[in-house]
Amino acid sequence: MFSSDASTPAILPTKSERTRARLRDIALRSFRERGYDATTIRLIAEEAGVSVGTTHYHFATKNHLVQELYLDVQEKHRAAAEPALAASTDLVDRLSIVYRTGLDQLTPYHPFAPEFLSAAVSPRSPINPLSEESAPALGVIEGLFREAVDGAAGTGLPDDFRASLPDALVLGHLLLALFWVYDRSPGQERTRALLDRGLRLLRMALPFARMPLLRKPLQELLELVASVKA
Amino acid sequence: MFSSDASTPAILPTKSERTRARLRDIALRSFRERGYDATTIRLIAEEAGVSVGTTHYHFATKNHLVQELYLDVQEKHRAAAEPALAASTDLVDRLSIVYRTGLDQLTPYHPFAPEFLSAAVSPRSPINPLSEESAPALGVIEGLFREAVDGAAGTGLPDDFRASLPDALVLGHLLLALFWVYDRSPGQERTRALLDRGLRLLRMALPFARMPLLRKPLQELLELVASVKA
Repeated sequence: MFSSDASTPAILPTKSERTRARLRDIALRSFRERGYDATTIRLIAEEAGVSVGTTHYHFATKNHLVQELYLDVQEKHRAAAEPALAASTDLVDRLSIVYRTGLDQLTPYHPFAPEFLSAAVSPRSPINPLSEESAPALGVIEGLFREAVDGAAGTGLPDDFRASLPDALVLGHLLLALFWVYDRSPGQERTRALLDRGLRLLRMALPFARMPLLRKPLQELLELVASVKA
Repeated sequence: MFSSDASTPAILPTKSERTRARLRDIALRSFRERGYDATTIRLIAEEAGVSVGTTHYHFATKNHLVQELYLDVQEKHRAAAEPALAASTDLVDRLSIVYRTGLDQLTPYHPFAPEFLSAAVSPRSPINPLSEESAPALGVIEGLFREAVDGAAGTGLPDDFRASLPDALVLGHLLLALFWVYDRSPGQERTRALLDRGLRLLRMALPFARMPLLRKPLQELLELVASVKA
């Protein structure tokens, strides 16, 4: 009794923490429902019933809230991918799980994807997926692809090939997301079809990585792709 | 004498044509020296000594002037590539010429590339390189890659492979330009190194396109890439 009572104050969030969480929730809903352009610090403050100053205290700019969104999307991506990964040891199936659950998380944002892309694509943007600010969210994606490769059984892939694969897969994810922004087909089915096609090709190509004649060009291809992300 | 005099009025540009050409020249210089964001119709009108209304009459929006820029860059790209293409029949050398002369034309704009990218990347942007409005400039690039492939001798490539190659090469050009925007190395030497690496790999991979075992996956890869651009 005593110890449980004593620990309670440490567990309950402070008023400040509750305000921060409310602002964050309102912002995430606003990004989903209004998009990037129409979401403003002023609007979020109004909806939360706090001052603009208080909102700025918790989140200096709208882009700090976009980072919360990125993390939220990727945490949900991980939560969706991990149980499915536990059910398969086939490399290509595992990659399909990570790519597909990633697209699933993006889906609600598709109507606003062009404005998010315009805001994020500049290498100078603090919400660029490759920026320092976005490293935690990108780290979740990198971790998922590493896990997908590491947990695959019987691939017979050379070690150096296995080591450079995750970076190439993450770049594939970013390019797939770029294609998805442009995809006007219902439910973005063209993106899913492109993914299936890419994975089918990968399944076809993987055995070649064990052939001495082809190991060098395939390893060279992977290193080239990895050098793009570096 | 008579016939030459009679044809003169048709050859001399009208006042309106001269105004248009001057506005275009001022805009192209402004994009190169000030970038996309700082170039405005008002500024161009001022420098040309004409009204904003006259400027709008010739170019409805700033983005119409960006299309003039795209065409100018690609016409210069063609002028630089074609004499060099005449000197080689090796496929990979010819592709190297088209890619390198393309990068050369982009170089002066590198300091402003992030703002051009932000403005152009949305699939809804009228200056998106894949938009209907940009089709004439993209057409020049497509023509150059087709010419590079068609004029190559002794490739021994299957016809279907040859036919789907140009679309894949154009997509490669767009992705290389995207990488170039992000390239902070001096003179964008990392982009040149990536290109060299990609072409070296292509040289390594081309003979495989003739092996029955590998024709299917390589053709599948090309079709996948071509489907992205479609």
